[in-house]
Amino acid sequence: MGASAEVTIREVALRDGLQSEKMFVPTDQKRSLIRSLSQAGVEFMETTSFVSPKAIPQLRDAAELMAQVERGQMKHEVMVPNEKGARAALEAGADRLIVFVSASEAHNQANVRRSVAASLADLDAIFSLAREKDVPVAGAIAVAFGCPFQGRVPRTDVLEIARHFADLGADRISLADTTGLANPGQISDYVSFFTGQLPDTAFCLHLHNNRGVAMANLYAGYLAGITLFDTSLGGIGGCPNVPQAAGNLATEDVVFMFEEMGVATGLDLCRLIDAAKELEKMLDHPLPGQVMKSGPSGWHTTGAACGAA
Amino acid sequence: MGASAEVTIREVALRDGLQSEKMFVPTDQKRSLIRSLSQAGVEFMETTSFVSPKAIPQLRDAAELMAQVERGQMKHEVMVPNEKGARAALEAGADRLIVFVSASEAHNQANVRRSVAASLADLDAIFSLAREKDVPVAGAIAVAFGCPFQGRVPRTDVLEIARHFADLGADRISLADTTGLANPGQISDYVSFFTGQLPDTAFCLHLHNNRGVAMANLYAGYLAGITLFDTSLGGIGGCPNVPQAAGNLATEDVVFMFEEMGVATGLDLCRLIDAAKELEKMLDHPLPGQVMKSGPSGWHTTGAACGAA
Repeated sequence: MGASAEVTIREVALRDGLQSEKMFVPTDQKRSLIRSLSQAGVEFMETTSFVSPKAIPQLRDAAELMAQVERGQMKHEVMVPNEKGARAALEAGADRLIVFVSASEAHNQANVRRSVAASLADLDAIFSLAREKDVPVAGAIAVAFGCPFQGRVPRTDVLEIARHFADLGADRISLADTTGLANPGQISDYVSFFTGQLPDTAFCLHLHNNRGVAMANLYAGYLAGITLFDTSLGGIGGCPNVPQAAGNLATEDVVFMFEEMGVATGLDLCRLIDAAKELEKMLDHPLPGQVMKSGPSGWHTTGAACGAA
Repeated sequence: MGASAEVTIREVALRDGLQSEKMFVPTDQKRSLIRSLSQAGVEFMETTSFVSPKAIPQLRDAAELMAQVERGQMKHEVMVPNEKGARAALEAGADRLIVFVSASEAHNQANVRRSVAASLADLDAIFSLAREKDVPVAGAIAVAFGCPFQGRVPRTDVLEIARHFADLGADRISLADTTGLANPGQISDYVSFFTGQLPDTAFCLHLHNNRGVAMANLYAGYLAGITLFDTSLGGIGGCPNVPQAAGNLATEDVVFMFEEMGVATGLDLCRLIDAAKELEKMLDHPLPGQVMKSGPSGWHTTGAACGAA
């Protein structure tokens, strides 16, 4: 493993981001945002989740939205909490299902009111359904780097879940620092460990910025060989009840960093900034992203400052 | 060079932070904050600057403040723009003078209305004065990683200034990313280059977060062998006219990261969080620091959650 000349940025604002917002963003506005992200070059999109509308009313339009989104270069990945959600997502034409389990018992109980073992047992049916439709499934492991209730999670516990996902046929595994408790040394260590133990599995990092460290964590992951990162336009997501506490890393900040390093993302920074401003207008509160406020460097590889003709 | 088990955090909130705030913080409140920072273990402090009170009214109480601050473990470093300021700072009992030059002509003209050469020529008198009093002088290079007016600055230009500082006897050189234009690959590259060219000089990194990349830059600097970093309590500083645009890296966020990595900072995270909240109350607006909102991990090396008895 080693640092790559190319990385892939996976956009999670529509799901992880919007589910943390107080307001329901109307479906046509979501479509508009997806179109803007598509025009910016986004290929991998976590578009929505088929969950109980009581639990997450912000995503209650999952089926409607999936029926309307443009298809093409952009792949619409859909998070599903159970078999019922998986059926609905497959029916809606999801390009990939995302299933998730927490690395700690405490967080899994808080999140889905089941034990980790019970959550894992439920996966068989979901993977079977997806296989019938020839739709890939990715696994996500929440609180993989630390749990706010239980503390550090032994990396062997996390590995066990990752191995379970891999055995079921997951084509990718996301390691999530759900509440921003990771540090770059730990990221290096875990990534080397997981990629060593499961050399044929593609890993993704999903990093929250609750403690201001997420960009260093992302860089450490990149140095350790990760080439797929979840980010969220404008940095939305996480804890809407904590004022100004950042959620995910902002897509446009991450793209700025990689492009300045000469690492290709395939995304258009100026269009991303425009999309982040569109999102900020929809949500009607300041977003934590920084590049959308300070602008790109001006000598950015696009060769022009954003906003120029 | 290589990653160290210990780092030193230099606090710049009182100077770089407060000079960017609209309000004047009364001297007794500054003293209180300095006391809180001292109790948190801060040893290196950029306490104020002897500049024109017209240019920076927020620091107009420099002499008064320096007369009142506690002396002891904490070293009070003072930024000086010219010989007049240097005399005043030495008279006020500064433990170290900080002189500065911009790496680009455009920024130096904007900042002090002089050419880089003229700024460098002025340094002779300042270093002489300091030598008479046996007070060390450190040099700071603004926009070392990129200038908002002029673009990328060739690292050989930056080296020339660093060499000039070193030849005059500067005991430390600060490389400043004044408007947050650096990226981690560049930081690695520059740090290796500078420490290779000037192996006997101590370097410090001063990183602004205008584009959300500063923590990754700091981590890259740490990996390249830097052990001294400027940070600002609560993350204040930078651009007060850009809402929510972060200034410096927040001291408590950086301390959180290093301590979680097992790298000793000598600072007490819980006391820093308390001090950041004290500062937020003084300034009466939300600060960009994240750990002050999300709290430490709970399993932090102090062994207790902050606020516990």
